[in-house]
Amino acid sequence: MNHVEGKVTLLSAGPGDLDLLTLRAAKALAAADILMLDDLANPEIVTLAPNARVIRVGKRGGCRSTPQAFIERLMQRYARKGLHVVRVKGGDALLFGRAGEEISALRHAGIAVDIVNGVSSGFAAAAGLGISLTHRDHCQGVTFVTAHMQDHSQPDWAALAATGTTLAIYMGMSRIASIAQALLLALRADTPAAVVQHAGSPDEKRLVTTLDRLAAEATAAGLGSPAVILIGSAIGEAVEFACHSRQGLAHAA
Amino acid sequence: MNHVEGKVTLLSAGPGDLDLLTLRAAKALAAADILMLDDLANPEIVTLAPNARVIRVGKRGGCRSTPQAFIERLMQRYARKGLHVVRVKGGDALLFGRAGEEISALRHAGIAVDIVNGVSSGFAAAAGLGISLTHRDHCQGVTFVTAHMQDHSQPDWAALAATGTTLAIYMGMSRIASIAQALLLALRADTPAAVVQHAGSPDEKRLVTTLDRLAAEATAAGLGSPAVILIGSAIGEAVEFACHSRQGLAHAA
Repeated sequence: MNHVEGKVTLLSAGPGDLDLLTLRAAKALAAADILMLDDLANPEIVTLAPNARVIRVGKRGGCRSTPQAFIERLMQRYARKGLHVVRVKGGDALLFGRAGEEISALRHAGIAVDIVNGVSSGFAAAAGLGISLTHRDHCQGVTFVTAHMQDHSQPDWAALAATGTTLAIYMGMSRIASIAQALLLALRADTPAAVVQHAGSPDEKRLVTTLDRLAAEATAAGLGSPAVILIGSAIGEAVEFACHSRQGLAHAA
Repeated sequence: MNHVEGKVTLLSAGPGDLDLLTLRAAKALAAADILMLDDLANPEIVTLAPNARVIRVGKRGGCRSTPQAFIERLMQRYARKGLHVVRVKGGDALLFGRAGEEISALRHAGIAVDIVNGVSSGFAAAAGLGISLTHRDHCQGVTFVTAHMQDHSQPDWAALAATGTTLAIYMGMSRIASIAQALLLALRADTPAAVVQHAGSPDEKRLVTTLDRLAAEATAAGLGSPAVILIGSAIGEAVEFACHSRQGLAHAA
């Protein structure tokens, strides 16, 4: 029985639209025996895995969720049966989303792990705004940071602002006012800022504003999770794009 | 004549392997009339664009290269003829690589621009090492930064280190010793560090070490551009992976 070797593929589902999956991801889905689905992944992804049994293991901050330890045991159980388990995660599996813990658990259990990269929602948000994350007239980098920390503390917003990089803030919508307030201690009030909800999906909604108006306008527009908050002078390029683009910016209405 | 509408697609070629392209990218390539190829993109990508005339417009720091203004004029000229121009960029087009300037030039010329996201080499590097970029036991984010700045100055390494995020440094191999030296003023000598050359391609080479030994070991291993340098305690997870993984780490030899 030990000769049947299963494996787990940690698969990045990208930001939403199925055609933002990689070719490698599509191949892995087609070969999947078991599909374990995250809340943030597009549910239509099951159509690409016709032979797989689908198990939903959503985990949303604050909501009823499948315990992490249970998810890890489930992956191991099926892999030990010789099955190809595909664990689907929204965006890129290696940015947030606890892949680190799952890789470590599988590794210690002696189970083979493949990782298939994908497009993180911060990149899709920039594409929606029609901007580079790192326009070299404005900055030399971008920082992807989660506002939802393990110990419920806040990231060091002053230190993040001091880098001069574009900030792409994930899981920040529930505390957007306090994030903006903290950043205003370090950045100018007119620093360009944006929110992109459901980036890279047909439901995408975009707001382009300035840091001092960010929280009020996002609330007024009814924008909520899942969304990426973008801060920094490179985001200012989106304003001009909105005026010139044929499609314009689909402001949240 | 003005009724023929061409367009430019800024297309992310991903880190190397063609199956790390998105499904959307493959569709855009199949429909391309003109393919403008970056040095960093896998040259085999032309096989996915059978109907396209291929124009090579490589730009490598310090080498003979196609001037940026010429590339921008060329894109506009073909788009104005009603052609679908696909401008291919390595990694994700919106991270480094001057997409910001190209979008701006096209926008001002009134030419429609599509953006197709992809996998940036920093994500492929993490996949090669078998780690999350943001293991939540270690950090709350990751900063992608280029060491190759417009004015030839250095980024503020102390400020970047102070964020506590994983650092993913692009275009840093030619000055790896000075980067490590600057970071050692702010980070512990035993901070985990890695280099992944040709991430996400068959030629991928990996080195896992510590910050104080990084430059000497990378040089001894003959690692050079293009490569991603990764610094931070989350990178330490790669060491254990190397011991447990069946394939192990393909150390540069």
